[in-house]
Amino acid sequence: MAWKMALPRDSRLHFIKKTYYLCLTASLVSWPPHRHNSSEQPFTLLAPLPAYTMFTTKVRFGSTKITSELIERVERVTGQRAHPFLRRGIFFSHRDFEQILDAHEAGRPFYLYTGRGPSSEAMHLGHLVPFIFTKWLQDIFRVPLVIQLTDDEKFLWKDLSLEETQRLALENAKDIIACGFNPESTFIFSDFEYMGQCREFYRNVVRIQKLVTFNQVKGIFGFGDSDCIGKIAFPAVQAAPSFSSSFPHTFQQREDVPCLIPCAIDQDPYFRMTRDVAPRLGCPKPALLHATFFPALQGARSKMSASDAYSAIFLTDTPKQIKNKINKYAFSGGRDTLEEHRRLGGCSEVDVSYMYLTFFLEDDEQLAKIHKDYSSGEMLTGELKKVLVDILQPLVREHQERRHAVTDEVLFSFMTPRILRVGL
Amino acid sequence: MAWKMALPRDSRLHFIKKTYYLCLTASLVSWPPHRHNSSEQPFTLLAPLPAYTMFTTKVRFGSTKITSELIERVERVTGQRAHPFLRRGIFFSHRDFEQILDAHEAGRPFYLYTGRGPSSEAMHLGHLVPFIFTKWLQDIFRVPLVIQLTDDEKFLWKDLSLEETQRLALENAKDIIACGFNPESTFIFSDFEYMGQCREFYRNVVRIQKLVTFNQVKGIFGFGDSDCIGKIAFPAVQAAPSFSSSFPHTFQQREDVPCLIPCAIDQDPYFRMTRDVAPRLGCPKPALLHATFFPALQGARSKMSASDAYSAIFLTDTPKQIKNKINKYAFSGGRDTLEEHRRLGGCSEVDVSYMYLTFFLEDDEQLAKIHKDYSSGEMLTGELKKVLVDILQPLVREHQERRHAVTDEVLFSFMTPRILRVGL
Repeated sequence: MAWKMALPRDSRLHFIKKTYYLCLTASLVSWPPHRHNSSEQPFTLLAPLPAYTMFTTKVRFGSTKITSELIERVERVTGQRAHPFLRRGIFFSHRDFEQILDAHEAGRPFYLYTGRGPSSEAMHLGHLVPFIFTKWLQDIFRVPLVIQLTDDEKFLWKDLSLEETQRLALENAKDIIACGFNPESTFIFSDFEYMGQCREFYRNVVRIQKLVTFNQVKGIFGFGDSDCIGKIAFPAVQAAPSFSSSFPHTFQQREDVPCLIPCAIDQDPYFRMTRDVAPRLGCPKPALLHATFFPALQGARSKMSASDAYSAIFLTDTPKQIKNKINKYAFSGGRDTLEEHRRLGGCSEVDVSYMYLTFFLEDDEQLAKIHKDYSSGEMLTGELKKVLVDILQPLVREHQERRHAVTDEVLFSFMTPRILRVGL
Repeated sequence: MAWKMALPRDSRLHFIKKTYYLCLTASLVSWPPHRHNSSEQPFTLLAPLPAYTMFTTKVRFGSTKITSELIERVERVTGQRAHPFLRRGIFFSHRDFEQILDAHEAGRPFYLYTGRGPSSEAMHLGHLVPFIFTKWLQDIFRVPLVIQLTDDEKFLWKDLSLEETQRLALENAKDIIACGFNPESTFIFSDFEYMGQCREFYRNVVRIQKLVTFNQVKGIFGFGDSDCIGKIAFPAVQAAPSFSSSFPHTFQQREDVPCLIPCAIDQDPYFRMTRDVAPRLGCPKPALLHATFFPALQGARSKMSASDAYSAIFLTDTPKQIKNKINKYAFSGGRDTLEEHRRLGGCSEVDVSYMYLTFFLEDDEQLAKIHKDYSSGEMLTGELKKVLVDILQPLVREHQERRHAVTDEVLFSFMTPRILRVGL
């Protein structure tokens, strides 16, 4: 196709990811946003959500919307209130999550798998979203969790040395540990390390590589003939932890423990591929929970980037930096003049500060009131931003404190292959 | 290209290997066979060699003929008579072997690397050729040797389970050990095992994979879009042992120890690729010594196959089987009638029994006499075959005895990553 030739390789992959995301979300979005739930029982939400998190029916690519019935079932099965990310549609679609709930109800084990590509030391708020949610899942289901750091992927894709990607993996692991994962049931591993520690990992990688053709990864990831063979083979490395036999220490050789993967929606192609090969490996298909993209300060259509300090709130930002970034760069849905704002009200659907509140303000009633007041014009952009700053400053500071407490010893203990305890 | 579409994948690869071999040897062959040496100093050979081992000049693909000067230099440097495989042009071409001799003369270390794809339990005489020669190199140079068993390759290419390829790797390792390698300076490893034992191995594989594109492996190995991604990525796994950093136990973290690879000529494409990437990895290019194909019983144009018991002498054959196979199936250069044979003489150039003698009859004078007598018609095919049977029966029996003595303990000791002793 023509655009293939016109774009450099990485842009092409990004373009495909973006297109994939747009196709997926387009089929999820309903309009107007307030009528976001097609089922009889409405969501128990007090505040409406940004348009990109709304959904109607079974979607393309075989992913399914998370309905209010499903959320209620989670609450019934676990006896816990659903996480705001679930109630507010930030985790908005799934594959086979019901089967995980079936297993849990029947007392059968499962495990969680998520990951991070360590391309930069600077993790931002958006990177925390899957980890915050995964920690919640770990807490309510009391199951083992494996976290993959794809230092090999980043070495292959970026202009980084192998040693640098491994260093970044360890730095990122500290941020991940700071999310509060249970040390007795969490195993964090870097591909470069773990491949040399566990022979079952490489075996599963090759088993998967035998079942996936170049044609398939070309179709899924947009690889071309001038891509290096490392990139072409890599999807199998991300797929392998979906199978419990990749962790013989952890699951004591069991090959049939099903896996639930909470991840950002752009990772779905890897796991569609994984689900395709699973039956041929005699393994259960991994289940998935998809998170929407976390918007950049400049808005949902802009891209957060470690190389642009003003595109995101980083986990290393000072309180002053946080305040400045929100005040100066967070795209506002407010009106041009005070008078106009009072008369017409702000537009929360495009307001990045409001979007961030849907992620990080836990109190549903307060969020609903902010939405009402901002939309009516009673609340000004500056006031909205102050609420957000007052939430993010302690959130980031506390993260930094917890990260500071992560010693090399703690890091080492999380990254040692071992039996993970269940039902703690 | 049209033939690409017409042939099934595996035939295509075989076709490409064959074409590559034919291109290479065509440019090596001179005629008549007696004038096989273009240099001033003639070979010190008493008997002429089969046509396919003759060479003239610097050849295509950058490989170089092994001249009599080079062989003399080996003898001078090591103080040992050259192995018959070298004297008789069975190892007929090389890359950078002079530089290995330079290093050895200057007292700098190097190491040997060879391997085997364990696709079958049934190894035949031809499989022994690189190992017999490698053992000789190890003995005269007193250097460490690493032997790769590509069980992952055979799992990817053949209809074999992963467990079966690993079992075959261990069975083949016993045959390799039976060639008499020094246990203190030889490390035999299976890819599936070693990848999970040594993190440096996977790191080097990925380093290489980053530097090789799909276009390149397509050109070198004939891969197509419907090949699995495991095959596409595999060449890097065969390349990695060419760099001493893949064996941190063995070489105590040294990354600059050069490598000499004795192998059959069909493996050259892997190492041309390896030599291409070496400078970009900051590593020395591996040097190579190429062996010609070992002919099938039915002749040099036929293919030995584990599934055709009559195509080769297997290392498990009984004395009776050996005798029967040679007598019944070894292609003869003899004439149709006794009278004709006496008058015109046999044609040793196409006679498989004679070819086998050039491999396994050590005595140069006896070989020369056989050539003379057979060509003149004085020696009959039956007599020629008897000489061969009398050599092969004890050779195979003694191999079987040595193999029988290879206990699991011995096997384990060869396959344990460890420091290899040098200069024993």
